[in-house]
Amino acid sequence: MRANLPLDADRLWADVMALAEITDPARPFTRRSFTALFLEGRAFLARRFAEAGLATRIDTAGNLIGRLEGRDPALGVIAIGSHSDTVPSGGRFDGIAGVATALEIVRALRDSGTRLDHPIEVIDFLAEEPSEYGLSCVGSRGMAGSLDGRMLDLTEPGGEKLRDALRRVGGDPDRLDQARRDDIRAFLELHIEQGIVLESRSLDVGIVTSIVGIRRTEVVFQGEADHAGTTPMAMRRDALVAAANTVRSVRQVAEQLAAEGSDYFVATVGILTVDPSASNIVPGRCRLVIDARTTNPALTARFVETIDRESAAHGKAAQVTRATFETLSDGLPVVCDSNLRLALQQGAKGLGLGEMDLPSGAGHDPDLPERLRRKLPLNRYDRSTFYGGDGRGHIDYPAHADMAPAAV
Amino acid sequence: MRANLPLDADRLWADVMALAEITDPARPFTRRSFTALFLEGRAFLARRFAEAGLATRIDTAGNLIGRLEGRDPALGVIAIGSHSDTVPSGGRFDGIAGVATALEIVRALRDSGTRLDHPIEVIDFLAEEPSEYGLSCVGSRGMAGSLDGRMLDLTEPGGEKLRDALRRVGGDPDRLDQARRDDIRAFLELHIEQGIVLESRSLDVGIVTSIVGIRRTEVVFQGEADHAGTTPMAMRRDALVAAANTVRSVRQVAEQLAAEGSDYFVATVGILTVDPSASNIVPGRCRLVIDARTTNPALTARFVETIDRESAAHGKAAQVTRATFETLSDGLPVVCDSNLRLALQQGAKGLGLGEMDLPSGAGHDPDLPERLRRKLPLNRYDRSTFYGGDGRGHIDYPAHADMAPAAV
Repeated sequence: MRANLPLDADRLWADVMALAEITDPARPFTRRSFTALFLEGRAFLARRFAEAGLATRIDTAGNLIGRLEGRDPALGVIAIGSHSDTVPSGGRFDGIAGVATALEIVRALRDSGTRLDHPIEVIDFLAEEPSEYGLSCVGSRGMAGSLDGRMLDLTEPGGEKLRDALRRVGGDPDRLDQARRDDIRAFLELHIEQGIVLESRSLDVGIVTSIVGIRRTEVVFQGEADHAGTTPMAMRRDALVAAANTVRSVRQVAEQLAAEGSDYFVATVGILTVDPSASNIVPGRCRLVIDARTTNPALTARFVETIDRESAAHGKAAQVTRATFETLSDGLPVVCDSNLRLALQQGAKGLGLGEMDLPSGAGHDPDLPERLRRKLPLNRYDRSTFYGGDGRGHIDYPAHADMAPAAV
Repeated sequence: MRANLPLDADRLWADVMALAEITDPARPFTRRSFTALFLEGRAFLARRFAEAGLATRIDTAGNLIGRLEGRDPALGVIAIGSHSDTVPSGGRFDGIAGVATALEIVRALRDSGTRLDHPIEVIDFLAEEPSEYGLSCVGSRGMAGSLDGRMLDLTEPGGEKLRDALRRVGGDPDRLDQARRDDIRAFLELHIEQGIVLESRSLDVGIVTSIVGIRRTEVVFQGEADHAGTTPMAMRRDALVAAANTVRSVRQVAEQLAAEGSDYFVATVGILTVDPSASNIVPGRCRLVIDARTTNPALTARFVETIDRESAAHGKAAQVTRATFETLSDGLPVVCDSNLRLALQQGAKGLGLGEMDLPSGAGHDPDLPERLRRKLPLNRYDRSTFYGGDGRGHIDYPAHADMAPAAV
């Protein structure tokens, strides 16, 4: 394995800070996909790509790609990157850190006169985050060949279709087949931690073992919206009582599964609505959405089976009908490449960095081609998944600028 | 005690059906206060009052009043009545049955040539139901002297103030002191059952022992809106978990108190909101409103004390802050007159009707003067209490038309 090349930490930091300046001033740090600010950020990146000697283009799926040719292009491409769009108040690092680091890796290779056998591409995927069009991972879907006509017809509240927005940012919805890739041999994404595990353990690096599979389940309880004053306790058909007990079950079962061993498991009730929602009416109808994520699909199967059984019992006990228990989406986990992981681990150790294996509980672009290759169902991203973002979890990325080349 | 007078069941039924015809055709049976339909219904009632020989007027608080003079007015007034406005889809009987029966009682007295010592007034209270102005019991508040300037300034979504609406229906907000009464010696209201106790026991009549006191408590849990994928179970501060366990406590404690004995107790969580309400975000904030009603204030005191303790524990277990535990309103129960109740009971028995003592879990006009006389705090009615009404609980009133005079 090649020794680590020195990166220019100041140069990398300056790029991240320069992009951070391109923000909605009313709520830093925000650069929503398809906006004028997004295009301004992209123009900055395209200039930096070109200055680094990269052959720079936007593919028909709207991805910004800078390529450094290898000695033997037939070996396939090593791709590195992330995304430059953000959720509202998404912070300075989510996505950006991965694009800027990819660029710095290429600059370090060039500065040291290193030429690789493989071509390298630095990729800024289009619209990784859920956007007003109701779809995430737009660019990587295009690259995987799964951006279909139904998706292109999605319309934002202002009336613009995704296909027109794609054209506006330099893509070409009529020639999406040209964006599809089968020549990428490896993909590496550096990303800010979106949780608090590394932060709480004061570790520098998490090496992602796999990207979780996400299963979403909708549960609806239908009771009777009776008068809260005149309906004795024993005569009630209170949908919220059944829903509350289901929230409790989700928490308890998730804690048990998470505590079982090394597999990652989390489950959340993030949506619970109550109808009619008045203080003097017994809730007649409640809807819950359960989000379960794991690196081991067997755990989710056991989880859903248990919640199915327990929520049915909660409905029965509260004298309400469980009108719906339905899988909204079900994606299997994707395991990350063990060679890349080993290289990252050795690189981190060599630099004296604190590291740990860590599953990615969030979805990312790189798992999309892998899912498609394995013909796994895609997670359905929709407006309900929109991440309101308050900046939390978007902690400062420590500028370990000389670490990344271990992987390439 | 005077023997029961014969009522004309057909005449009473015809009045109720005639009022039922005056409805929003799109959602029978609806006659919202202050609307043109409401005024049409009132005009019908005023004609009927006059035909029955009643001296008919609208007081400055907008109540429609028909008076039959007694031999000795100084003895004070026996008032009988209810309200002619409805909630949306409120049905043919809620309120109307009480006004029409009062009218029929007076007609029966006149038909039989009976003259009482006391004057009798038939009252159609203005706007008993919560309306778009955000206030219920408008007319009876005026009669009790508690309709204040702040209430009169309440504005419906279209921009009209309550004071102007009051003027429009024949009241006079500048002379409300003239509506205040201290000469009412007894009040009787016949009302359709709003629950399902009589219906489920196939009984004819419930004799109201007391009108419940209502205590509303607001609880807010403040956690952390973390990413649902990347935040391990043990690190969560999930506000919904604390809220769900509180819903469960409310149900369990209410069931225990209701099961203790003869006192009526019910408690409901009718409102539960989740922020930010996205499937991939751990709930950061939840708000609940707890409605507890009882005929025995000691039960509510024990209930609130227990829920205070348990909700604090649920917050602690979920690692969230219980930011609010606050009493929004607290009204004591009002006991109904034992002489009137006895007369009603004897009258029902004499007619072979199935009857039972029953607390009123809903609020009504007649408790307002009593609350004021005893200087009890009023329940705060606000937009959150609006009853969405689906017609349920508004069952057909069996035309036991010859039963009512037992009380007067």
